[in-house]
Amino acid sequence: MAESIYSNYPPDLSPAQQKFLVTSVKDWAIQNGLAVRPSPAIVPAGLDPNGVLATNAPVTLFPSPFPRTCFEEATALQEIYNKLYATITCNEEWLGKIVEELIEVDDFVLNLWKVHQDVKKEGYVQDLSLGLFRSDYMAHVLPTGATALKQVEFNTISSSFGGLSALVRKMHTELLSSPPGSSINYPPHPLLQSEVPPENTAVETLSAGLAAAHEAYGVSKSTPALPLCVLFIVQESERNVFDQHALSTQLKKVHNIPVFRVASVDILDQTSIPSSNSARPLLYQPPHSPDSTFEVTTVYLRGYYAPDEYKSNRDWLARTHLERSAAIKCPSVLNQLSGCKKVQQVLAEPKGPDHLASFLKGVDTTLIERVRDTFAPQYDLSVDSQGRDLALNPDTAMNHVLKPQREGGGNNIYKSDIPTFLRSIPESDWRGWVLMELINPAANAQNVALRNDGEVLRGHVISELGIYGTILWESTGKILHNQQGGYLLRTKGKEVNEGGVAAGFSSLDSAILF
Amino acid sequence: MAESIYSNYPPDLSPAQQKFLVTSVKDWAIQNGLAVRPSPAIVPAGLDPNGVLATNAPVTLFPSPFPRTCFEEATALQEIYNKLYATITCNEEWLGKIVEELIEVDDFVLNLWKVHQDVKKEGYVQDLSLGLFRSDYMAHVLPTGATALKQVEFNTISSSFGGLSALVRKMHTELLSSPPGSSINYPPHPLLQSEVPPENTAVETLSAGLAAAHEAYGVSKSTPALPLCVLFIVQESERNVFDQHALSTQLKKVHNIPVFRVASVDILDQTSIPSSNSARPLLYQPPHSPDSTFEVTTVYLRGYYAPDEYKSNRDWLARTHLERSAAIKCPSVLNQLSGCKKVQQVLAEPKGPDHLASFLKGVDTTLIERVRDTFAPQYDLSVDSQGRDLALNPDTAMNHVLKPQREGGGNNIYKSDIPTFLRSIPESDWRGWVLMELINPAANAQNVALRNDGEVLRGHVISELGIYGTILWESTGKILHNQQGGYLLRTKGKEVNEGGVAAGFSSLDSAILF
Repeated sequence: MAESIYSNYPPDLSPAQQKFLVTSVKDWAIQNGLAVRPSPAIVPAGLDPNGVLATNAPVTLFPSPFPRTCFEEATALQEIYNKLYATITCNEEWLGKIVEELIEVDDFVLNLWKVHQDVKKEGYVQDLSLGLFRSDYMAHVLPTGATALKQVEFNTISSSFGGLSALVRKMHTELLSSPPGSSINYPPHPLLQSEVPPENTAVETLSAGLAAAHEAYGVSKSTPALPLCVLFIVQESERNVFDQHALSTQLKKVHNIPVFRVASVDILDQTSIPSSNSARPLLYQPPHSPDSTFEVTTVYLRGYYAPDEYKSNRDWLARTHLERSAAIKCPSVLNQLSGCKKVQQVLAEPKGPDHLASFLKGVDTTLIERVRDTFAPQYDLSVDSQGRDLALNPDTAMNHVLKPQREGGGNNIYKSDIPTFLRSIPESDWRGWVLMELINPAANAQNVALRNDGEVLRGHVISELGIYGTILWESTGKILHNQQGGYLLRTKGKEVNEGGVAAGFSSLDSAILF
Repeated sequence: MAESIYSNYPPDLSPAQQKFLVTSVKDWAIQNGLAVRPSPAIVPAGLDPNGVLATNAPVTLFPSPFPRTCFEEATALQEIYNKLYATITCNEEWLGKIVEELIEVDDFVLNLWKVHQDVKKEGYVQDLSLGLFRSDYMAHVLPTGATALKQVEFNTISSSFGGLSALVRKMHTELLSSPPGSSINYPPHPLLQSEVPPENTAVETLSAGLAAAHEAYGVSKSTPALPLCVLFIVQESERNVFDQHALSTQLKKVHNIPVFRVASVDILDQTSIPSSNSARPLLYQPPHSPDSTFEVTTVYLRGYYAPDEYKSNRDWLARTHLERSAAIKCPSVLNQLSGCKKVQQVLAEPKGPDHLASFLKGVDTTLIERVRDTFAPQYDLSVDSQGRDLALNPDTAMNHVLKPQREGGGNNIYKSDIPTFLRSIPESDWRGWVLMELINPAANAQNVALRNDGEVLRGHVISELGIYGTILWESTGKILHNQQGGYLLRTKGKEVNEGGVAAGFSSLDSAILF
């Protein structure tokens, strides 16, 4: 089924058709904020000292076909997944055991754990946590030709592209639906004549999550009471700002909530916790209005997610400062740690205790099995383990990918490179890796991408579907808000094994369900 | 009154305040399509071969104060002005006399007139004309300190910036109104605390004009009937595309009308008039959909307005081709000619026949006088004329500007330069110039502009108010649609006597009425 859908898609473009589509897309992108700041590869440093230039986000010219059953299953499971990761985050003991294994191979995990330990020693003053999650999947083609939903990873921090992917959906839909009365923007094709991509409510969903936390924070903990706000913690030289602005605009306009942006380097200068107030409210003083003070209800991290963002101890102090405050963290340190690959692997472990079922106690067992069905087989490489056998045997290695446990720790190793690679490093380092069975996407999917330098790339692609979800919970596990909504379809050229959308190696896309 | 308002405006900005406002404005601009393609001065040719980069349109950081009485008078008079220029366009004989005087000094006018003569000889097949006008004014400060509305010029072709100026109004309003509950984006100032800029319906008004023409065109004149569309004629290397897209998006989404863009160089290749059809429908074949043919109801010129756009006879053939077609022209050649400076000067002529009153026959005389009050005194330089005396006398020249009659014919000459300049050219060329009394704007108005290269300029400024209007009429003078709505406030640094917004020397602004 899947393969036949892809065999004649997308339709060929004449030079005039391609020129028209490219012009339409690049103008639509700027007209509607589907944009990024250009990288130095596009605009050399010094040419734009004031940082005014922008370009289209990398996007596909066509929406990509995606199996409807997989899309609907991913959507149906998101709220269970939200609950699963909230529940894991509440179980500090369980999470602590996993963290202890990682600490030896990953300083970043060690340092995050230390932040938690420090705040725990002092005592947390905020019982609520907020998660803005994105669960990423591929449509795995089974030998029968049917497709099954398989999870690639679960993001618990800085789940990005909700703002831009909603815009890509809007753009593809408008291109498919215009001009009014006779859609001729695309060459005729059955998939493009009958369908538009499903609605994408990522902006509404993610903003509603932040608004729910803001609301749940309650009244100001300061005397006299201060005005309340949400704080976005961002990277100083972020290029993906328009994705973030889509959320802050929604928060301001629809939810009427003040939102400010603070670069991670400025946290300690621009925010404070009054030592005299045991409730530890996080106070923000906008440098552009030094007489104003806001109390932060919710800290939304769009920075401080990767090891290389912590350049010195000052960054760890800043992270600790946020963590010990009364602001609701999105995410807390523990919630960030729940997203590490080792957790995914332990949940998928076929032998031993059924962690998944115990975290989802009370959930319908068929639902739990549907969650389990989304796990790709994955293994650690401990002595005498099945993982070690599969990784070292060149035949079975061919069907696997080796992923570093360490966050931001380098590239994945694929297939026949796995045994060679493992033998090239000390055996003691093997614990730093997880072996995962390769997901088998449709072999002949194709699309045409417009990069953010305007180059047009055509070829075989792999699409990854991310579903957004938000959840607000108490440390007891009680859930106050749990919602799914909106998606990211990220489509990469097949020759590219790694790469983020912002880097221009992969493109934002939308889905035509079949 | 006016001077005191300006004396402490805008409030000073600390470095942190300026940084915040600049960042907010440049991000808002890209998020919302308040953008232009950068000039080669910003992005050197070759660096962006695919033309993907964009930057903010040049904008003021603050809205500019503008006298409420002047704003309201300009708005109140726009529909009379629409009618005036439609009526002038209907009077070919009167317009012909003016054109005859210009022909000797202006080849461009000559060639336009030839297009009209050629089509007239064959016979026009379209009785309707559409005008999308913009009447530009300054608030003239009288010796008493009061202000009076004075017209700078009346644009009958390619009246631009409606799309972007509506966005600037939206941006200033949002900056003034956020964060919700405690507006701290600007330093406190009475003008900024009590007022937001008046609504700007330029996009709605201009699109409604085009939609009215599309509707009035009626059914297809082809057999079998073809789908109908509006055609934007644009410059091949237009940088101000997002201003134009604001209108086409509105036409598509709100009015459900197909809109296409054709570069002026492509008109003869992409459109045709079947010789077998005496109704002369203008047919458009989109290169991206060669099997489709649309019939053009309305040709909207955002190109072909200036002499330098007519590079060869092929351009004049293309303009004639459009003019002889059954499409409604916005504007027709005659309507374009009605906008030349000589018409403005003749209307303002204090001696001789009262052209204004005869064109506005039936209009309330007090309204006619209000229109007349907007004319700045202006003169030709014929022998023994008042204009010649005023121009050659260094004392009176100080109060005037000398404007070339010729379209695109060079820069204005100011004040003491006028006598010297006139003596430097042959007397026979003097008929190519109009002398206009200088309008006296508020001396101490100031603002801060963000250029499209990100440079911040602060200083004394002059603001020009343009009011948009649309009118659809029959050659008998019968009016089918007449509407005003929306405005452009264009603010220039005072040291700059000339310059268009797109060139970065002047900025798009919005008005705080006082």
